[in-house]
Order: sequence, then C-alpha cells, then structure tokens
Amino acid sequence: MNLPEFIVKNGYYEGCTSNFEDSRIVLVGAGFDGTSSYRSGSRFAPIALRSETILAQENYSPYFERDLADRKIHDMGDVEIAFGNNQETLRRIESASRFIVDSGKIPFFVGGEHLITLPAIKPVLQKYPDLHIVQLDAHLDLIDELFGERISHGTVMHRIYDLLGEPGRIYQIGIRSGSPEEYVFARANTRLFPFQTTGFTEHLHELGGKPVYLTIDLDVFDPSLIPGTGTPEAGGIFFQEFIQFLKEIENLQIVGADMVELAPQIDSTNASTIVASKILRELLVMI
Amino acid sequence: MNLPEFIVKNGYYEGCTSNFEDSRIVLVGAGFDGTSSYRSGSRFAPIALRSETILAQENYSPYFERDLADRKIHDMGDVEIAFGNNQETLRRIESASRFIVDSGKIPFFVGGEHLITLPAIKPVLQKYPDLHIVQLDAHLDLIDELFGERISHGTVMHRIYDLLGEPGRIYQIGIRSGSPEEYVFARANTRLFPFQTTGFTEHLHELGGKPVYLTIDLDVFDPSLIPGTGTPEAGGIFFQEFIQFLKEIENLQIVGADMVELAPQIDSTNASTIVASKILRELLVMI
Amino acid sequence: MNLPEFIVKNGYYEGCTSNFEDSRIVLVGAGFDGTSSYRSGSRFAPIALRSETILAQENYSPYFERDLADRKIHDMGDVEIAFGNNQETLRRIESASRFIVDSGKIPFFVGGEHLITLPAIKPVLQKYPDLHIVQLDAHLDLIDELFGERISHGTVMHRIYDLLGEPGRIYQIGIRSGSPEEYVFARANTRLFPFQTTGFTEHLHELGGKPVYLTIDLDVFDPSLIPGTGTPEAGGIFFQEFIQFLKEIENLQIVGADMVELAPQIDSTNASTIVASKILRELLVMI
Amino acid sequence: MNLPEFIVKNGYYEGCTSNFEDSRIVLVGAGFDGTSSYRSGSRFAPIALRSETILAQENYSPYFERDLADRKIHDMGDVEIAFGNNQETLRRIESASRFIVDSGKIPFFVGGEHLITLPAIKPVLQKYPDLHIVQLDAHLDLIDELFGERISHGTVMHRIYDLLGEPGRIYQIGIRSGSPEEYVFARANTRLFPFQTTGFTEHLHELGGKPVYLTIDLDVFDPSLIPGTGTPEAGGIFFQEFIQFLKEIENLQIVGADMVELAPQIDSTNASTIVASKILRELLVMI
Amino acid sequence: MNLPEFIVKNGYYEGCTSNFEDSRIVLVGAGFDGTSSYRSGSRFAPIALRSETILAQENYSPYFERDLADRKIHDMGDVEIAFGNNQETLRRIESASRFIVDSGKIPFFVGGEHLITLPAIKPVLQKYPDLHIVQLDAHLDLIDELFGERISHGTVMHRIYDLLGEPGRIYQIGIRSGSPEEYVFARANTRLFPFQTTGFTEHLHELGGKPVYLTIDLDVFDPSLIPGTGTPEAGGIFFQEFIQFLKEIENLQIVGADMVELAPQIDSTNASTIVASKILRELLVMI
Amino acid sequence: MNLPEFIVKNGYYEGCTSNFEDSRIVLVGAGFDGTSSYRSGSRFAPIALRSETILAQENYSPYFERDLADRKIHDMGDVEIAFGNNQETLRRIESASRFIVDSGKIPFFVGGEHLITLPAIKPVLQKYPDLHIVQLDAHLDLIDELFGERISHGTVMHRIYDLLGEPGRIYQIGIRSGSPEEYVFARANTRLFPFQTTGFTEHLHELGGKPVYLTIDLDVFDPSLIPGTGTPEAGGIFFQEFIQFLKEIENLQIVGADMVELAPQIDSTNASTIVASKILRELLVMI
Repeated sequence: MNLPEFIVKNGYYEGCTSNFEDSRIVLVGAGFDGTSSYRSGSRFAPIALRSETILAQENYSPYFERDLADRKIHDMGDVEIAFGNNQETLRRIESASRFIVDSGKIPFFVGGEHLITLPAIKPVLQKYPDLHIVQLDAHLDLIDELFGERISHGTVMHRIYDLLGEPGRIYQIGIRSGSPEEYVFARANTRLFPFQTTGFTEHLHELGGKPVYLTIDLDVFDPSLIPGTGTPEAGGIFFQEFIQFLKEIENLQIVGADMVELAPQIDSTNASTIVASKILRELLVMI
Repeated sequence: MNLPEFIVKNGYYEGCTSNFEDSRIVLVGAGFDGTSSYRSGSRFAPIALRSETILAQENYSPYFERDLADRKIHDMGDVEIAFGNNQETLRRIESASRFIVDSGKIPFFVGGEHLITLPAIKPVLQKYPDLHIVQLDAHLDLIDELFGERISHGTVMHRIYDLLGEPGRIYQIGIRSGSPEEYVFARANTRLFPFQTTGFTEHLHELGGKPVYLTIDLDVFDPSLIPGTGTPEAGGIFFQEFIQFLKEIENLQIVGADMVELAPQIDSTNASTIVASKILRELLVMI
Repeated sequence: MNLPEFIVKNGYYEGCTSNFEDSRIVLVGAGFDGTSSYRSGSRFAPIALRSETILAQENYSPYFERDLADRKIHDMGDVEIAFGNNQETLRRIESASRFIVDSGKIPFFVGGEHLITLPAIKPVLQKYPDLHIVQLDAHLDLIDELFGERISHGTVMHRIYDLLGEPGRIYQIGIRSGSPEEYVFARANTRLFPFQTTGFTEHLHELGGKPVYLTIDLDVFDPSLIPGTGTPEAGGIFFQEFIQFLKEIENLQIVGADMVELAPQIDSTNASTIVASKILRELLVMI
Repeated sequence: MNLPEFIVKNGYYEGCTSNFEDSRIVLVGAGFDGTSSYRSGSRFAPIALRSETILAQENYSPYFERDLADRKIHDMGDVEIAFGNNQETLRRIESASRFIVDSGKIPFFVGGEHLITLPAIKPVLQKYPDLHIVQLDAHLDLIDELFGERISHGTVMHRIYDLLGEPGRIYQIGIRSGSPEEYVFARANTRLFPFQTTGFTEHLHELGGKPVYLTIDLDVFDPSLIPGTGTPEAGGIFFQEFIQFLKEIENLQIVGADMVELAPQIDSTNASTIVASKILRELLVMI
Repeated sequence: MNLPEFIVKNGYYEGCTSNFEDSRIVLVGAGFDGTSSYRSGSRFAPIALRSETILAQENYSPYFERDLADRKIHDMGDVEIAFGNNQETLRRIESASRFIVDSGKIPFFVGGEHLITLPAIKPVLQKYPDLHIVQLDAHLDLIDELFGERISHGTVMHRIYDLLGEPGRIYQIGIRSGSPEEYVFARANTRLFPFQTTGFTEHLHELGGKPVYLTIDLDVFDPSLIPGTGTPEAGGIFFQEFIQFLKEIENLQIVGADMVELAPQIDSTNASTIVASKILRELLVMI
Repeated sequence: MNLPEFIVKNGYYEGCTSNFEDSRIVLVGAGFDGTSSYRSGSRFAPIALRSETILAQENYSPYFERDLADRKIHDMGDVEIAFGNNQETLRRIESASRFIVDSGKIPFFVGGEHLITLPAIKPVLQKYPDLHIVQLDAHLDLIDELFGERISHGTVMHRIYDLLGEPGRIYQIGIRSGSPEEYVFARANTRLFPFQTTGFTEHLHELGGKPVYLTIDLDVFDPSLIPGTGTPEAGGIFFQEFIQFLKEIENLQIVGADMVELAPQIDSTNASTIVASKILRELLVMI
C-alpha cells in the first residue's frame, strides 16, 4: 500500500493500531482551519488528541462495553496542510478520503474546521449516491456566500446540499444559531431538530437502510464542557445526552464520519481535549 | 441631545445601533467594581462584551425568533468610572439612569458589580413608585453593613429594600448563598425562591400589571458555565433554564434592567464572555 | 495533646476552629500525589482550599440549614510530605489517622491523590472491623498491579478490598472508567452503581447501622465543573445531584471520610477550587 | 471623504483622534492571519490594541518627550477580513493603502500576520520607486514557495524582493531563524543583520534621503517579552534595545510602516498586548 | 501585646517567625486595591506570597549570604480590608504602622496597591521628621487629582510630597511613565532617575545619615519578569540590576519599607509571585 | 537491534531521524518527576517537545550554521514510567543509558526531573572513570537527605559526587539557590560558578581532554524566559548567554548529556516549550 505523499505520520491514537489492510475504519487527521471567521486553532486538534489518548490510555467504553483495540481501526496519519493554499489542502483531504473509500473502508476524519467535511464527503457520496447526512452542530452552516466566498466553514452544509441535489437528506440536530436567511433555507430544504437531539429519535426510522455520513461539530456541546472550540454557543448538549444519541443511532449504516472544531490551545485546563478524546472513543466503538 | 459629560463612547454592541431618539431601550456600560470583596474585574465587562459581539456578529435569537437589530436599542456608551471615588461614580450612574428614564426609555445597565443596581434603580423607582424587583442571583446581598460600610455589593438588596419601604416587593430567585441573618431577613421581607427559577413561576401572576426592574447577577449561573465572575457559587442554573425563565416573564412590564458581575479576564477561554453575550442578547430581545 | 511531629500548621479552614479536644471531626491535609500517572498537582489542594475558604468566608449551608462553625470541627494541619519516599509519607498519613481515631474523633482527610485513602482507612478499619466503604469516583481504581507496583492511585480500592477480606463491602458509585479486567472484578466483588448516584439509593438500607467510610474522588464530578483534577472523565455528576446524594446518606454512621484529587493549579479560573470548597463544606455539615 | 466600503469602525486608539484631513499618519487595522502556518490569532490584534490603549490611557512618551495626541494621527478603522478568501482580503488591504497614499499621508498598518506587508507596500512603492525596506524580524521570510503557495507569511519578503526588482534594498535586522536556502538568498540579495539591531547602525547613512518602509514583526522581540505571537523565537531583542534603535532611525524618511504578528489571546496575562501598545506608541511618536 | 483588632492572622511567611517583642522588622499585609484604575487584584498578594514562601522554603540569600530566619522578622498578619470603605481601610493601615513604629520596630508593608504607602508612611514621618523617600517605580504617581479624587494610587507620591512639605526629598528611580504635567512637577520637586537605577548611585551620599523610607512598586520590573501586576510597563529593570541596587543602598538607614502591586492571579504560571517572593526575601535580608 | 522492552515510541523529534545504527547521538525521553517537591509536570516534557518540533519544523541553527538533520541523531523513544515505583523507573533509565553507551553512542536524555541524571550517568561513568560533570542549574542539588530520602531531585548532585568519589569533578554553573549547608559542601567539594556562566570560561582548559557529562537544568534560565519549570528562580541567564556558553564548550569531549525540568503545562503561552525546543536544538548541533 502506498500512502498518498501528503500524508504525514506523527505517533498514533492509542487503541487504533490495526493494520490498514485489516482495518474497518481508517482515521485521518485534517488540521485545516483556514476559513475560520472567529477563533482558529483547530489545526492543532489531531496532534493534541493523539498525545491525550497516549497519556490517558483508556480504550474501554463502559457505555458500549467494547474495547477500542478490538474495533479494527487504523490511524493513517495527518493530511499535511498547505498553509495559505486552501484549494490545495481541500484537494488533499478529498484525495485521502478517496484512498480510504476505494479501499472499501470507512473514513473517519478528525478536523480541523467544519469545512473539511466538504472534501471528505465527496468520495463517499460518489460511492453511495443515496447518502444522507446526520449533523450534530450548534450552527446551521447554511450561508450561501460568506465574505464573498462560497467555500467556507459557514457555508459548508449549503455546499453539501448543492452536491446532494435534493432537499430532505441533511438532518441538522442540536442547532441553536444561524441567520434568519439560514433558518428559512433550513425549514425548506433540510430536516431541522433545534436545541436538542431528542426530537430526532422519532425520525430515525427514515434512515433505515440508507448510507449515512455522520458529522459532529464539537460546538454542539455546551461551552462549559468544551470551551476549547472556535465558536462556543450557549445552551448545548452534555455528554450523557450524546451517549444516549449514539445508542439510538447504533444501527444506522454509517459509511463515513468526522469530528471537527476542537481548538485545544484555547482551554488551558486541557479538559476540552480530554472530553473530546472520549467523544472520539465512543464514536469509534459505536460505528 | 446632549449626553452627560461623563459618558465615554468606545465602539458599540453589534445590533444595538438604533438612534437614541428612536430607541426603546438604552444600553449603558457601568464598569464599577470598587466594593467587590472577593475577585474584582467586572470593570472590564462592558468593553469585553462589545468586542465579543462585534467579533461574533450573531444578532438573531432562535429562541424568540427575533433579531436584535430590529429591537430599537441604542448603545449610549460607558459611564466613566471615578476610580477611588465611589460616591462620585454612583452619582454618575444614577444620573445616566435619570437621563434615560426622563427620555421615556428603558435603561439597561451592563455592570460592573451588583452595587450599580442601587443608583440605576433610583430614577426608575421615582418614576414608578410601585416598582417591583426581580433578582436572579446566587447571593441574597441583604447584609445590612459590611466592613462598616452600608453601601456595598453585599448590601445592595438591603438598600433597595430600604428605598422600597415595604416588604414583599423583591423577588429573589436562584439564591444559594447568604448568612443566617440574611436568610432570616429574606424570609421576613422578600420573596425567596432558592436554588432554581421554577418555584417562581406560580407567583408570576402577582406581578401582572406592575412595573418591574429585572436584575441579573451572572453568578446565578453555574460556575461551569460562567467561571469568569467575582464569586462563583456551586449549584447554579444553566442556559436552558434561563431561556425558559425568560419566556415565562416575557409579558411582564419591564421598565429597567441590568446584567452584572461578568469578570471577563478571569476566564482565559473567553467562554464566560461568549455565554454572557448570548444572555445579554436574549434579555434584550425578550424585553 | 502532642501532635505528631510530621504535622505542619499553615493557617486554617474558615469555620473549622474548634479545639481538638472539643471537636467531633478532625480535618487533616494530606497533599501526597506521588503515584499519579497522569496529571499530578493534588499536593497543592490543602493549601489552596484553606486560602479559598478564608477569602470566601461562607460557612452557612443553605442546603442543610447549618453553619460550619457550629459543627465542632478542628483543622489539625497538614501531613508533611516526604517527597521521593512514598512509604514514609503513607506511614505518616496512617499515623495521623490513628492519632485521630484513638482520640475518639472522626478523621477527615483532604488529599492529595486517591492513594491516601489506603493509609487513612487502616486505623478506622481496625476500630470498626465491620467497616463498609462508600466511594464516589469516576474510576474503579481496582487494578491489581500498575507498572509493577501494587500500591498506587489506580490500585487503591483493590488494596482496600484486600484489607476488608470479603466481597460486597465497597459501594462504587458514579463509575464510568476502568479496564475490562477491573469491571470483571467489580461485578464479582464490589457493589457497582455506574454513571450516577441514583441507583444506589434503593440499596442504602443495607448500610443501616454499619460503620461507613466515605471517600469522594472529585473526578466523579463532570469535567465542566471540576476541570482541575488529575484525570477528568466525561459524563460526571453535577452539584445538585451531589447535594441530593448527601441528603440521602445523612443518616449513615460515617466514621471516617476523605475528599481527594483536587489539582488546583490546573484551573486558572480557580472555579475548581471554589466549587470543591463548597463540596467540602457540605460534606462537613452533613456528617 | 468616502472611506472604502470594506472599512469598519470599532472604537479608536487612544490619542489617535486627529481628523483624516488634518492627519499626517493614518492607522489601519488589518487582522488577516489566513496563511499562518503555526499559531494564528493575529486577527484579534487591532481590536485588542484599541481596548488596551483606551484602558491604559498613556499617550506621553518619556523616551521622545512627545505626546501621541499631538502627532496628527487618524485611526481609520479596520479592513474587514474576507475569511476564506485570501485574495480578496489582500486586495482590500492594498486598496486601503492606496487610499491613504493617494491622500498624501503615511499609512501605518496594524496586523495581522506578516503577509499584510505585501499589499500594504505596493501603493507605497508605486509612489516611491526607490523605496527601501527596513525589517525587524526573527525570521527571514524569504522562502520562495511554502506548501505549494507563493503568497504566504513565510514568503512575504521574497515577494517584496521580486517587486523591488534589485538586490540590496531590504535591510533585515534581528534575524535568528530561516532555512539554509533562505540564508543563501539573504546573503546574496538582502542586507542581513542577524540577532541584534546594533550592527545596522553603521549602515544607516546608506538610507539617508531614501524613502523607507518600516516593518516590525513583533517576534523580533524576546519570547519572554512577547509570548503572544504566532512563532516566538528564542534569543530576541528587548525593549530598551528597540528604543535605542528608534532613536537612531528617527531621521529616516519613513513613508509607510506596519507592526504585525501580535496574537493577543495566546498570552492570558495580557502583557504581550500591553507591551505591544507601547511599541506602537513609540513607533508613532518617532515617525 | 494586644494586636489592633482589625489584624487577622493567616499562616505566616516562611522564615519570619521571630516573636513580635524580639523582632527588628515587622511584616504586615495590606491587601488594599480599591483605587486601582486598570487591573486590580493586588488584594491577593499577601496570602499568595505566604503560600509561596511556605511551599518553596528558601530562606537563604546567596547574594547577601544571610538567612532570613536569622534576621529577627515578625509576621504580624494582615490588615482586614473594609471593602467599599476606603477611608476606613487607610485608617487601619496607618494605625498598624503606628503600632509598629511606636514599638520601636521597622514596619514593612506588603501591598496591595501603591496608595497604601500613604497611610503606612505617616507614623514613620512623625517619628522621623527628616524622612526621605526612595521609590522604585515605573510610574511617577504624581497626579494631583485623578477622576476628581485626591487620594488614589496615581496621586500617592503627590500626597506624600504634600506631607513632606519641601522639594527634593523624594528619589524616583526607574520611572518610565507619566503625564507631561507629572514630569514637569517631578523636575521641579522630586529627584528623578528615569529608566534605570544606575544614575541614582552617584547621589547616594546625599542620603547618608538620613532616615529613609523605601517603597518598591513591582511594576518597576520588566513585564516579562512580573506580568502579574496591575499596570505593567515595557522597558523595566531585571533582577540582577535590582540586586546590585540593594547592595548599593545596604548602608542607608531604612526606617520603613513596602513592596506593592503584585497581582498574583493575573499570571497563571505563578512566576510573578515566585519572583516577588525572592525580591521580598532580598529586601528583608538587606535591611 | 532489540530495544529494551520498557521503551515506548511516540512520534519523533523533527530532524532526529537517523537510524540507531548510523547515529552518533541517541535521544531518549525520561519523563520521570516522582520526587519533585514543588511543582511537578516534567513528565510531559518529552511528548510536548516532540509535538513542538514537529509543528515548528526549524532544524537549522543560525548560531552554529548547522542543520540538525545532518547531525546523525536517533530518537529512540521514551522510557515508560513505572508510576508509584521510583526504583523501577530509575532502573529503567539506567538500563536505557547502558544500552546506548554499550552501542558506542552518546546518550542524550530529555527529562523529567533532575534526578534522572543519576541513573543516566552511571553507565557513562563506568565507561569513562575520569568523567567530569558540567551542570547548568539554579540550584546546587547537594542536599544529603531530603525528607528522610537520599534519592531525590534535591540530592542528585550529592549522590553523583558520591559516585565520583573525589572532589573537584563537578562544575556547578549559574547557581543561585541552596541552603547554607549545601554552599559549605559546594565550596569544599565542587567547583562553584554562581549566578552566571562567565566565570567558568577561564577554567575551561582544566577540562581539556577529559570526558564530560553535560546536564542542563532549565531553571538555570530566567523565569521570564522559562516559567514552565518546577522551581523557577529569579535572576537567571538568558538565551544569548547560553549560546555564548555553548560556543565556548564546543570543543569539550561530551560523552553524555541531558536537559531536564521543563514542565510544559504550567505555561499556557507554550513559550517555555518553544524556547526549550531551541535550547535542545542548539545543544544537539553543538555536541
């Protein structure tokens, strides 16, 4: 196997030591934060999460009663960021995703900002044309054009909507921020479950048998739990609600996923990274 | 219109750009923290909140489905603090409040410590002799004399009680700290709703048709959410409970208000200020 | 009364000013953190908590409607840590505990890491052979041997189990982390109440009339509330649940207790220490 | 006068309150940090410096015995950043510079990352074809292409060299970092004064009568003094050496200037911003 | 001996354990910061310095080859601050100083803000009418009236000048900030040694045989060394220069002293407090 | 080659990618801090330094005009710490050192606390019986017994002295802290160069032809430069003085070395780690 040349190896996530060939899920770091309009710093998330998992060495999920080390996960390394050249970086992320999808494995991206979902999702959508999106997020990210730019962390779900080509395939959960225009667009074109994850449960059956891409923007969580994110938003969910949500979606057919927007250096207690490492573990044992 | 000479202009709150004449609510910063007995620093709250709202640019409330920019709010600027001369500073705050009240508008003060409520409320009480007070706070603030001083952040509600001249007109909600003497006084003279906002709801009807001054001490919130305050107190409320409370009091006749005790520099993640800016937005769209 | 020579006096906890002879509860600081495998720093907890309580001066519990100053509590000082000589330090803690137990008083240790519970409990167990343990903790601490060492913060409950000599006498509450082996051991030998305190309530009656040692590892709380601890663990309890728990166990016969794992310098907002000082106050007024 | 539409006003720098028409120097904020390859955050420098100068209110320079308020300086506001669209942002900065230069005034940019010097300098160079550059910096910034991108904070001085079209017109002072290739390029094409400012003095006369653009990358200072910068570099200069340098260059004909790379949120003591505000004051009274 | 009733005891400074009666120097904490116009927090300096010295346990000065424990120093405790009542607090500080001076001992105050020097110095001046003042400070503190208030941290040296009643008896060293008016006043009425301590040396002989009060405002040090102060000022002195200064003034007849303006919580590394504790030790062994 | 089983691999230091066999210097992380008596946390130094060097990617030393990548350095990984079992950890460090020394290479340890020098040095001394020690440090570390323990970070140089078996072979440079007893011992038995590195130069010739072990305790640097260390000590050296020192000792025959006492999490600006990574680079290119 020849890795793409723009992949760099920096240690590994504890418990994600399966070979590429044997693995079912492939982790990739994509520390791109080039369009963040408020606080950036999610570029440091992949390296911070690796250090954290090595130091804490906790692989066993008491919620799912499973051990990460048994889940056949490979940590492929990080996409090298072409600082100052956003198009090139996005092209690399797409290429890494294609490499994994073409190998018959599930890509799991660790951001970086939310824009990385756009290139990550493209190869998945090509393979699964009926792809549906489940998004946990504080923000709609449905702006059409931000500061004269159509490719941005604030427009990413609008661009993904454009790719899907029809309404009703994006489930937006936990939302509590957006412009009036975005809310109008969401009501017309996406499935909106504001503030909490609970309303979504009764619609779960709609996703039965569909391929699903799961994208977790960590700002869906309450700022008290994860202050270390670019745009914290009051009124978020807590960890127990998240575990409940994971248990409900456990039977979905997840074919791609990401966790984005951890900005580790903002939180000097390191608790944001510590909590995010457990969110990541639960995501990985759930899939 | 001639502003009082002690008002200084330092930028503006995003979305609060109505002219003074056209405005219904007038925001004033009052960064006084001269009697804080534990951690001071609320002097920096007005300037920190302005910067935060400019950077975040989020005016739309999904809870009330209203936009701050439509609410006819004017940001008048800050009362210049006469450091070392507490009486003069309090006199200026009272004068700013009178200026706004005399113009037929609702004053909204951004503290500063809780003592600012005393001068802010005086002109409101003169205009509305039947004024009632709704206080969200962790602390009773009912001490009669603190360190030989009767005018202090710990005595402020006692002094306001003195002004009102009769018991039963101060509703103290979310309280979880005070001396035994203060609790005795509260049980005799104020309406006490400890720990939570929920008990207050069934008494809401008592305030129907009464003019109400609303004072929010941010330490009513849990320390996990707002560590950046002078005297954090374990066991506070969270954002969702606050939104629920706001929806319940929406029909009260609020004739003056304040939000006090944000100490932004204590919280290096800036999450306290970010959350407080959303609390402020929801307060302003609710009134 | 002659204090053990290794006890040093550094100020006192506000409200804990009873004489040793008259006291019912004796506080001791044991700032040992020599086996912490992740972030240490709990050595600074006793001195940080003393400063905090002096500065905040809040002795009255509105939850129990009791004043700390009325509870006959003596602050004996701190066990001097023999840095680099763990055995000697543990011997001193045991000796301090024996001194208090032999005087007919209840020892209350302020850690330090969780390992201090082992020496603290020994003299209590000798006096009360039927001792039961109530442990609030995120972690099982049931490893048999960690890094080739049997005496460690990760093995402490296993060593206490060895001392007790029979299964069923350790109640482990709030647990959400452990290795598969530890969970197997817990299911066979301890009473396990994962994630929350609520399941424990219906088993309270089993402890009626039994002597109980209560050990509170502060990482049982959510990382949003106490990030200043060595090993924060997502999904913890909040203060209100803790108060509810305290009210339920109020009638237990508590003969010894500790509160461990505050690492104050990790949290630059100081909120972890501020919250812990209130947890300590409620523990002390409850016993 | 009609300001460019992309200029936003957010308060002002204390002491920079001259009218545009009367002013000799025009300050502009350019909080662009879109190509930073290590720690970003210089986007917050203009707003942080304004707040700092308002709070500190110290306009008098005891080094030059001049008052900032007498220096005819206008604060024009900030270039609005088009997040995600680097070309557009750079175009706006160039346009703001042209607006000032065309008005016959000296532009002074507050970054933002070092790349802003490229668009800022273009209109100045068009007006003064014999422009020379004096750069205080820890880094050569002479890379030709970084991550496949020629327009970046690491290539900025190479691009400016390209614009100048001949060697010997860039004076690089205080340099202590670069790749071997950059050092080769510098030795051939720029004037290199490594580690300190002192070697430069004897070459000052070469700049007599020439128009000079002065660019100060704050990482030229020691990391102990300004840790709040993207790429701190051990072994920098201190404030006294900087003042000495300013006194030596006082008679140069400075026709444009900037101060870049303050990342205020990195330093929770705020000392980096406090020191930078004094560096800015001394620069402004010197010119 | 009966201590003034407003003195509270909170632990002690390591090495300052002489009895009051036997002592030559008496330490008092005066954590007053009620007129600080920028960042307050020096109220926490006495308790932070005590904790620091206990934890570090370093009493031996290698610069003076003396041990603190041999210097006959008594730590009397702290003046209780009457928060909100500045006059009362200042009266208490003056009373504490009188108590010490009347006992024939040298008072050494640990601030708190610089204003505490005013009440501290009054009893010293009454005893020594020919008192001279040696002030290490970044700021002149010679404003006549600040915000309509004549008693303030910014006016303190002017008020002391008023007490002295004649020019030339205040030596201001290390100064690098003030208004033009203050500089005019200083040139006429005080002895000004700007920026450094070195110029002062050749005037030392003037103080031969005179009683001297030494006041150290910690902001005389460089912000890189002590960021934890209210108003850091670029361009300060470093520790070695301070030691050199102490050696030069060793033979002065120091009859009173203070060290002010440490704000420990601003610097989360705690280095400001650690350095200040060594500055304090060297001051105490020098006198 | 079979690595010792207790060596774990976690990424690598940028530029240290030579094979073990080809390498001249072998880097090992030894994050042991089990006897630190003040602030621990140096356990995190190896992983923090690796992350830092990867992120900063600066291999070229402009001081020595050499590139790290050309120096034949191998990063062997980290000694796994046996938390709670200090003897076992020290045994592993000694074993790792022996492994390297026996392979004919120069061991370079990255601490951890200063005690790691004791096991690191033993195999070097066995190979080079005439070994001399050059120690840069703020503290003498010559205590004979600390808290009843002879093996500790405060006694390490005394134990090394015991190993050497004769006076005059330890050069202690930059020292500015110790007890009177330690100073007596140093004057009799070591070569003491207090406060600065400069006095040492004229004695360099004594070390001509001798094998030298170089140990750098980062607290020799000024606290302003490296606050992120366990025991910062006012009055340290700065980076330029250190570079000068390195140039002077360049011709010594260095057969082993270490850099200890970085505690990265204490300094939330990360500047301590950033500076330490450059100190490490200069050490490695110098040897």
